[in-house]
Amino acid sequence: MAEREFKVIEIKQSVFADNNRAADELRASLKGQRTFLLNVMSSPGSGKTTTLEQTIARLKDEYRIGVMEADIDSDVDAHRIARAGVKAIQLHTGGMCHLDAGMTRQGLEELGTEDVDLAILENVGNLVCPAEFDTGAVKNVAILSVPEGHDKPLKYPLMFEVCQALIINKIDVLPYFDFDMDKVREFALMRNPSIKLFPISAKTGEGVDAWCGWLREQVDAWIK
Amino acid sequence: MAEREFKVIEIKQSVFADNNRAADELRASLKGQRTFLLNVMSSPGSGKTTTLEQTIARLKDEYRIGVMEADIDSDVDAHRIARAGVKAIQLHTGGMCHLDAGMTRQGLEELGTEDVDLAILENVGNLVCPAEFDTGAVKNVAILSVPEGHDKPLKYPLMFEVCQALIINKIDVLPYFDFDMDKVREFALMRNPSIKLFPISAKTGEGVDAWCGWLREQVDAWIK
Repeated sequence: MAEREFKVIEIKQSVFADNNRAADELRASLKGQRTFLLNVMSSPGSGKTTTLEQTIARLKDEYRIGVMEADIDSDVDAHRIARAGVKAIQLHTGGMCHLDAGMTRQGLEELGTEDVDLAILENVGNLVCPAEFDTGAVKNVAILSVPEGHDKPLKYPLMFEVCQALIINKIDVLPYFDFDMDKVREFALMRNPSIKLFPISAKTGEGVDAWCGWLREQVDAWIK
Repeated sequence: MAEREFKVIEIKQSVFADNNRAADELRASLKGQRTFLLNVMSSPGSGKTTTLEQTIARLKDEYRIGVMEADIDSDVDAHRIARAGVKAIQLHTGGMCHLDAGMTRQGLEELGTEDVDLAILENVGNLVCPAEFDTGAVKNVAILSVPEGHDKPLKYPLMFEVCQALIINKIDVLPYFDFDMDKVREFALMRNPSIKLFPISAKTGEGVDAWCGWLREQVDAWIK
């Protein structure tokens, strides 16, 4: 498929002192225009973009999708998403380690949401700071990959508390790592008893349908 | 080997407005007492603690080693280092995503450096924020693991600019990932032409001798 064109946006530090209020206002305006916003967070290299490619392939005939790729530098990821055939923009954070609601709003205005049912923010790769700022997203998902280890919910509690779903990615390499799926489930549920777990391989596609089923339910409940 | 006892310290946000100056002062006092401080940074789950276990096993008969394990929560890592038979403390950052020089000084005071030749700070797992703060360390090393991908120097430039050495960990799983060692070398050198690369497997021990050789040279140049 031909790569779509995309813009690279240098976003500015947010001017809102009250991020929670700015996030609530953004969610209300998204509700009004029937756009669902998903915030995707993880460590660097856990497979956010590959997971989005798989998700887009399964959902792009049902929803009009737009993706914001946030990175400190480079436009590697926006190229990949643009090749997946949906609307994409690259956000450069100017060294900042997270996005807040004001920065997310800047991104959405550049993306244009009037023709988007499902907007996706791929946050900066970081398991700490992005969890501290409500972006205005309707739902948050974290991706933890098998090579990172099952102890991460013990060390980075807030990320697992603020997410409604947790994707365990790279299950195709489970035989090569000391990763205990029962323990990661126990530790994640200890942080957040209602979190939904989706073990997947974004490389092979295994498990991605279950994740997309959950996401479809969330989007439909918001836009219909 | 029996696990040594260790303390858990809740470190406070630093009061120094001028972190660079506090870092220079800390380095000067470390020089005076002949203690080398190594700052180890990486994403969550790239193998900092396992790399330190391998490093300690090779160097603990030559140097008196003390390790500070920084995490937002948990004391999993300090247990592991204490089992390796060297002095260890766990630093809790109270949600903070990095350590600065003032926080590092608090940690060193709790660790006690009068009987330490080689002090090691295992920074919070984060490829963004820790790179922004000089901790007062003599040398910085970043660890990038194969599953994270070779594009990370493009996306997180500062981390690769501030480090003198880059460990590429988990080379034992190279066959299972699309990781290009030539490209990571090219991208890292683009950010920092003098950075030294050490491909290792902290799991099998492959390549660790070369890394320890480099570290030995740095420590000897500082303390002798």
